[in-house]
Amino acid sequence: MKLLETINDPADLRKLPRTSLTPLAHELRHFLLDSVSKTGGHLSSNLGTVELTIALHYVFNTPHDRIVWDVGHQTYSHKILTGRRERMPTLRQLGGLSGFPKRDESIYDTFGTAHSSTSISAALGMAQAAKIKGEDRHAIAVIGDGSMTAGMAFEALNNAGVEEDLNLLVVLNDNDMSISPPVGALNRYLARLMSGQFYAAAKNVGKSVLPGPVRELAKRLEEHAKGMVVPATMFEEFGFNYVGPIDGHDLESLIPTLQNIKKLKGPQFLHVVTKKGQGYKLAEAEPILYHGTGKFNPNEGIKPAAAPSKVSYTEVFGNWLCDMAAVDQRLVGITPAMREGSGMVRFHQQYPQRYFDVGIAEQHSVTFGAGMATEGMKPVVAIYSTFLQRAYDQLIHDVALQNLDVTFALDRAGLVGADGATHAGNYDMAYLRCIPNMIVMAPSDENECRKMLTTAYHYPGPAAVRYPRGAGVGAAIEQELTSLEIGKGEIKRQGKGIAILAFGSMVTPSVGAANELNATVANMRFVKPLDVELVKRLANEHDYLVTVEEGCVMGGAGSAVAEALAAEGIVKPILHLGLPDQFIDHGDPGMLLASVGLDAKGIAASIRQRFGGGEPRLVVNNS
Amino acid sequence: MKLLETINDPADLRKLPRTSLTPLAHELRHFLLDSVSKTGGHLSSNLGTVELTIALHYVFNTPHDRIVWDVGHQTYSHKILTGRRERMPTLRQLGGLSGFPKRDESIYDTFGTAHSSTSISAALGMAQAAKIKGEDRHAIAVIGDGSMTAGMAFEALNNAGVEEDLNLLVVLNDNDMSISPPVGALNRYLARLMSGQFYAAAKNVGKSVLPGPVRELAKRLEEHAKGMVVPATMFEEFGFNYVGPIDGHDLESLIPTLQNIKKLKGPQFLHVVTKKGQGYKLAEAEPILYHGTGKFNPNEGIKPAAAPSKVSYTEVFGNWLCDMAAVDQRLVGITPAMREGSGMVRFHQQYPQRYFDVGIAEQHSVTFGAGMATEGMKPVVAIYSTFLQRAYDQLIHDVALQNLDVTFALDRAGLVGADGATHAGNYDMAYLRCIPNMIVMAPSDENECRKMLTTAYHYPGPAAVRYPRGAGVGAAIEQELTSLEIGKGEIKRQGKGIAILAFGSMVTPSVGAANELNATVANMRFVKPLDVELVKRLANEHDYLVTVEEGCVMGGAGSAVAEALAAEGIVKPILHLGLPDQFIDHGDPGMLLASVGLDAKGIAASIRQRFGGGEPRLVVNNS
Repeated sequence: MKLLETINDPADLRKLPRTSLTPLAHELRHFLLDSVSKTGGHLSSNLGTVELTIALHYVFNTPHDRIVWDVGHQTYSHKILTGRRERMPTLRQLGGLSGFPKRDESIYDTFGTAHSSTSISAALGMAQAAKIKGEDRHAIAVIGDGSMTAGMAFEALNNAGVEEDLNLLVVLNDNDMSISPPVGALNRYLARLMSGQFYAAAKNVGKSVLPGPVRELAKRLEEHAKGMVVPATMFEEFGFNYVGPIDGHDLESLIPTLQNIKKLKGPQFLHVVTKKGQGYKLAEAEPILYHGTGKFNPNEGIKPAAAPSKVSYTEVFGNWLCDMAAVDQRLVGITPAMREGSGMVRFHQQYPQRYFDVGIAEQHSVTFGAGMATEGMKPVVAIYSTFLQRAYDQLIHDVALQNLDVTFALDRAGLVGADGATHAGNYDMAYLRCIPNMIVMAPSDENECRKMLTTAYHYPGPAAVRYPRGAGVGAAIEQELTSLEIGKGEIKRQGKGIAILAFGSMVTPSVGAANELNATVANMRFVKPLDVELVKRLANEHDYLVTVEEGCVMGGAGSAVAEALAAEGIVKPILHLGLPDQFIDHGDPGMLLASVGLDAKGIAASIRQRFGGGEPRLVVNNS
Repeated sequence: MKLLETINDPADLRKLPRTSLTPLAHELRHFLLDSVSKTGGHLSSNLGTVELTIALHYVFNTPHDRIVWDVGHQTYSHKILTGRRERMPTLRQLGGLSGFPKRDESIYDTFGTAHSSTSISAALGMAQAAKIKGEDRHAIAVIGDGSMTAGMAFEALNNAGVEEDLNLLVVLNDNDMSISPPVGALNRYLARLMSGQFYAAAKNVGKSVLPGPVRELAKRLEEHAKGMVVPATMFEEFGFNYVGPIDGHDLESLIPTLQNIKKLKGPQFLHVVTKKGQGYKLAEAEPILYHGTGKFNPNEGIKPAAAPSKVSYTEVFGNWLCDMAAVDQRLVGITPAMREGSGMVRFHQQYPQRYFDVGIAEQHSVTFGAGMATEGMKPVVAIYSTFLQRAYDQLIHDVALQNLDVTFALDRAGLVGADGATHAGNYDMAYLRCIPNMIVMAPSDENECRKMLTTAYHYPGPAAVRYPRGAGVGAAIEQELTSLEIGKGEIKRQGKGIAILAFGSMVTPSVGAANELNATVANMRFVKPLDVELVKRLANEHDYLVTVEEGCVMGGAGSAVAEALAAEGIVKPILHLGLPDQFIDHGDPGMLLASVGLDAKGIAASIRQRFGGGEPRLVVNNS
């Protein structure tokens, strides 16, 4: 690690002779593998961007020039080269480095990313700002081929391509993958670009010509292309100067090409081909397995984990999907490029005709499902809570307004742990319950999750089940596919004085708190329609009400309880517990929940602080 | 109208000889002009789709074959030909025909539309359903060139192009316009397709060959193309069979081409060129003026209206934008293709370098603004409340999470009248206030709107001002650019017993109600941060609280007041008035508000019903 240790910022990097860069890449790759195997994190994508990262910081004058990393889970090399090498052991831990670029963390992180396909928009904004301000700087978006399938990237290309005097560079990091295997026409198109004569020609011509001016290359390629009747690329049709594809692991191609592109004005598009997992044979062979890893021994690779004692909610969903598909031919499963994360691998294998991975295309995924529903199919859209934010209008305008029969399986609802604030599913209860026709459920355990999915599925309108990341409480799961009564909660524990109205994942810690306080606990089950009869009964039979949810308090499920009380003319002291009005960074999920008072201890403490201990004490201002 | 009167459904149309279709188109165009000039509505786009509508229903077996009309404001001919001719005088009025396709209205309206760019997704869903069910039917999306710029359309193309055995037809209705003039690279590309040799060749070849098999045509065109080194179109690269461009007003081209396409399997793409306003010289000359009209005399055309006594909120925004731009060079204005609707025409003229129409690309518009903000610019994103739903994740993930300085000017907040449920801005207070770092304001009059825009602009983080469609109360507008204190409301009327906490447009009717009841009225101004001190004071000094807002009650501003009371430990009878939990159809805005009890009379009645008349009576259940 002799070379790497000398690099404390990109200025150090730029002092190195070109001949040192390949050995540096070697060191960096070793460092990455060693570091990620100790902390867990994203591996395949980071091994794939070692040379590209070195080349960009070597050629461009960062941080004066701006690099925006799309998605951003491929930025570990970037972090290591920009002064954060020694903090890598803290990656994705409470108080440690984020797994994504973060403006608060470094001046080199020009734009926070995590959700895909934002980079071209942001970089274009930067480039326009530089133009208006008369500043001479480059704005560079580095985007994967998976991210390019999202409409937002297309919107940005469409907007950028007509700007002739911007210093904007889009680097397409083409590794033939998003997290799931690639789908869609664009991917097929890119494969043609890569495998066809064009690629071969570029390769051959490139070897001798690339160090020369790119204009010259472009001209020759064009002549060459005309002779071969090779069409202009789609990116040229959009107004970009297209260069590539070039080998993204060959610094001798990357650096001269970037140096030449740097001299050009107007929107530039560089097509770079990399391999996920590059340099680590095990990850090259199984890039999906090594996409996001826990800790492992790099010499042995990831070992099949012993079957965990508890199944995850994701598995509960995946199993339910297969079981329901077996009994109902109308079921179709839709994922926006999250087959693995959403637990749909087995469904894909067993029901390939009814499995639809539409690419990173959340908007489309929902309206596509709506179209299916109009024809009597029963679409199940599996989507993370945080990604449904991308399809909010489609849910409102295309599904809810037409009261279409679409089931939403919302994984990663609530805090998500290591991925941090960008991935938090904190807002779904608030943003869904305000939409007419929606049904919104939150399960308190795995078995209830299965029942809620069945309930949502049989309900002939839009319905969402929001369940947390990771394992549940270890409840036994009944195989039968049974429904719950819509809009009905249940009493989990009968106490007195205080009634805790708990939603989803907060039922278990609420019972813990109630055991201390001898409070009643209701598992509300339905955020919408709320069990108003139960709310009334609890209000009548208790002095104080407490709502608890793993979601934002503002506008959330507790707020629904308060609205119901107001609508019923019931006046009763109420305390809302839930996620505070702030973005919550990455860290261990249990620790994070405790830090905001959403474990049993914290819930009990908040209730005591407000309503006194076992003996109810009214601290209300009711003058 | 001899022919038109015989058409009560498309089956009648299909009985006509081909030779009758051109005279029918002539009648239909007359009928349209006559009808729209009496009711108001969309004109230019409907004049442009007369022949295309006739041809689609003539060639395809509707309703068995499905037509999805993108945006749907061009469907008047479709409505007239599908049994709704006689109801056209009720267009866009309470209880009358919707201005958009609506599933409840007709079996021929296969998918409700209004927001742009959903049609390919929906039609693809229908086509996939037909395939799974083994049903032989066509699914057809008719989409304008403006709508094609939205990412969602790209997502759907990307997903559809790899499906080789679907009966999917995308008809690109290329009229070189969205509502505002066209922008972006795709538009430029389409213009090249139209104006270039390819178009000329297609025209010439088309005349003789089009009635023959399209495969043959495609083959000849391909040979022809190869000879001329014409590249394959972008749509072919996406896996579609591309046909066109053809003249969309020439039934002799349209019908044989569609008949041939109908025989082909796999994704088909027909590029049709039409002219907005076709056949009505005034609309052809000024398609934007005639895009959406009021009533007018078709012989005279639209006359410049006498200057209205009250300015609209849209004008308040437009004037503010120019005034602020004059004093702050950092201001940039961004619109997703709504220059006219958002009141940005003068800003565009005066500050072309700082005006950005990014196309119908809501997602991109927000993140593009975020990118600008990172560079110290002061972006103002002007967007309708209903369209911000399209950029919800970008607002959360790219703006709010990074606490970037972006001002959101949300026009059309609350009920919108004739456009109906699809365009209603009913949810923004709920879906914005749950997001950390956001500031959300609602003005009670025009002058306050200007102050709030100034406040939002000077606030160095994300802030939204949501204002209604149409004119305000007629308040005098101070030219000075002054800010309000953040998080502070004001007392508008001092009464006793009952305190009405009113938001935005509901302040004036609340004062009306309060005059009857001798209630206090507060103009809350801020949905977030809420003026908690004012809430406490009002709670202390009154027996009953009432919140009133032109937005959904669920999770809305009133709900925020209830949360604040709970957080402060205040127990007080409260009544939430606002929009009910249902989608509200089109109609006169004043009548609609009255129908949901949000005029002065309705507010007073609701309060009386709940809390009794002048003499407070507690009807709460507090056992």
